[in-house]
Amino acid sequence: MLSLLLFDYLGTFAFAISGALKAARKDMDLFGLVVLAIVTAIGGGTLRDVLLGQRPFWLTDFNYIYLSLLGTAAVAALYRLVSRFETLLLWFDAVGLGTFTVIGASRAMEAGVALTGTVLFACLTAIGGGMLRDVLAGDVPVVLRREIYALAALLGALLYWFLRHWGVADALAAPTVVVLVTLLRLLAIQYRLGLPTLLIHDRRATRPPD
Amino acid sequence: MLSLLLFDYLGTFAFAISGALKAARKDMDLFGLVVLAIVTAIGGGTLRDVLLGQRPFWLTDFNYIYLSLLGTAAVAALYRLVSRFETLLLWFDAVGLGTFTVIGASRAMEAGVALTGTVLFACLTAIGGGMLRDVLAGDVPVVLRREIYALAALLGALLYWFLRHWGVADALAAPTVVVLVTLLRLLAIQYRLGLPTLLIHDRRATRPPD
Amino acid sequence: MLSLLLFDYLGTFAFAISGALKAARKDMDLFGLVVLAIVTAIGGGTLRDVLLGQRPFWLTDFNYIYLSLLGTAAVAALYRLVSRFETLLLWFDAVGLGTFTVIGASRAMEAGVALTGTVLFACLTAIGGGMLRDVLAGDVPVVLRREIYALAALLGALLYWFLRHWGVADALAAPTVVVLVTLLRLLAIQYRLGLPTLLIHDRRATRPPD
Repeated sequence: MLSLLLFDYLGTFAFAISGALKAARKDMDLFGLVVLAIVTAIGGGTLRDVLLGQRPFWLTDFNYIYLSLLGTAAVAALYRLVSRFETLLLWFDAVGLGTFTVIGASRAMEAGVALTGTVLFACLTAIGGGMLRDVLAGDVPVVLRREIYALAALLGALLYWFLRHWGVADALAAPTVVVLVTLLRLLAIQYRLGLPTLLIHDRRATRPPD
Repeated sequence: MLSLLLFDYLGTFAFAISGALKAARKDMDLFGLVVLAIVTAIGGGTLRDVLLGQRPFWLTDFNYIYLSLLGTAAVAALYRLVSRFETLLLWFDAVGLGTFTVIGASRAMEAGVALTGTVLFACLTAIGGGMLRDVLAGDVPVVLRREIYALAALLGALLYWFLRHWGVADALAAPTVVVLVTLLRLLAIQYRLGLPTLLIHDRRATRPPD
Repeated sequence: MLSLLLFDYLGTFAFAISGALKAARKDMDLFGLVVLAIVTAIGGGTLRDVLLGQRPFWLTDFNYIYLSLLGTAAVAALYRLVSRFETLLLWFDAVGLGTFTVIGASRAMEAGVALTGTVLFACLTAIGGGMLRDVLAGDVPVVLRREIYALAALLGALLYWFLRHWGVADALAAPTVVVLVTLLRLLAIQYRLGLPTLLIHDRRATRPPD
């Protein structure tokens, strides 16, 4: 589908920029920016493909790599400008979240994976790159902390699976879920919605991380 | 083997709880608990399967995922209670260590891997999940620091390989090694046995980690 | 090629020692030294093989594992001595960088990967192990920060691809690129050459990493 590919490229670009920005703020050099941009943009899909026993998707379409390099170049050349448009970036990122969710779920279903596995692969595709980015930057992955991010992917994957199972054509199911996941994510940003944490008040929780 | 599957599930449950506890103590949200529980429980076996060129084991038996979710739910609902039974959890964890060692060694031998590789795959199966858990939580993997944990897996894998090589039936070799690895681990906990470290007293060692 | 295999073993040994040294300085136990030595020595090539859908290279030649254990033993037994020869180790490491670059590029080309992918796989082979080492030790990978290290691999991979494409025999192209990458790395060490970073002076950059 042409429109899905467009969304996919937009999301890839946004993910790459988030990786390059993180690298720049961690005082990495130009090569570090490139690595974090690429890892963030293609990491989730790569983990999915490896687990499904398939060749990484970017080996047949290097545009994902070139978009990552473009995102790096944008950050390196226009850091102040790019930083100022962080709200716009969050919107692109939300589009990427929705698109990667649908692509991950769709690839898993094509490979004959059942519902539980489809949801896992959709979430892995959507959040894997960001998790690798944060681990390489020495941070605890932000997606594990306090955001409705992965939950949007999870709900989207569930919905996509049932739509396809009920016989809804992919040409309808895919864009519907992309839009809904993107909207849910934007609402979560707007209203600062988050999942609860356990409020642990024992000594171990207040101790600095060891 | 029915009993090995039972031990496998018990170990999976214990590993999942250790992941969810770690996530809770790191102040992660509910989604973070789920991710760390799943990664800890199935991470080692997944790395093994990917390196052997096979589909992840949990794709044909989602009970491993459901047990991880159950462990997360137990931690989320009964945090104080679960924390209080940490000795019991260490016992379950030791059972998991023994079982994962044998399963890892057995899968590697079935795939035609020689002794050295079999030991590597057994250790990877047994400690890979815990290492991923600690890295995602921003800690240096505890298994690399000061415990007879991986050593028990290593010795168990060696013993298992020789037993099978000497013609001992799997129905005898597998439970024997599970029990011995579990016991060795419990003894190490009881008597606080550990491997030595190099006592480095140069400046670099006393400098805080960079 | 015999000479390439010799360089490969030399580089493996040097990478293993860098892993064991890092583990020792992080106060890990003997098992931690072994794990970091192995991961550093074979991590990059293993990631490459998994992404190319092939069995890890060390499954058909366990000498890579034995060399890692030898490197660990050297560090454990002769820590002070080994530390004193760090300049020599940097030379070995540079040889490893050159060799791993060529092997990574060559394996990718054999698998039918195009130029962009060949460069990616060469860099992954050369720097993947060191990145895994640093992540497991709780550090931000040094290669992302401020060194002409990956850049040498990148340029070497480009050169190797064009040499092969222009019909130069591997027996000539491979050693040429190994020597050039090694020299470039040694020059970078000698003259402290590095890639630029973005000099970010906003509040986020001066805040300690979160």
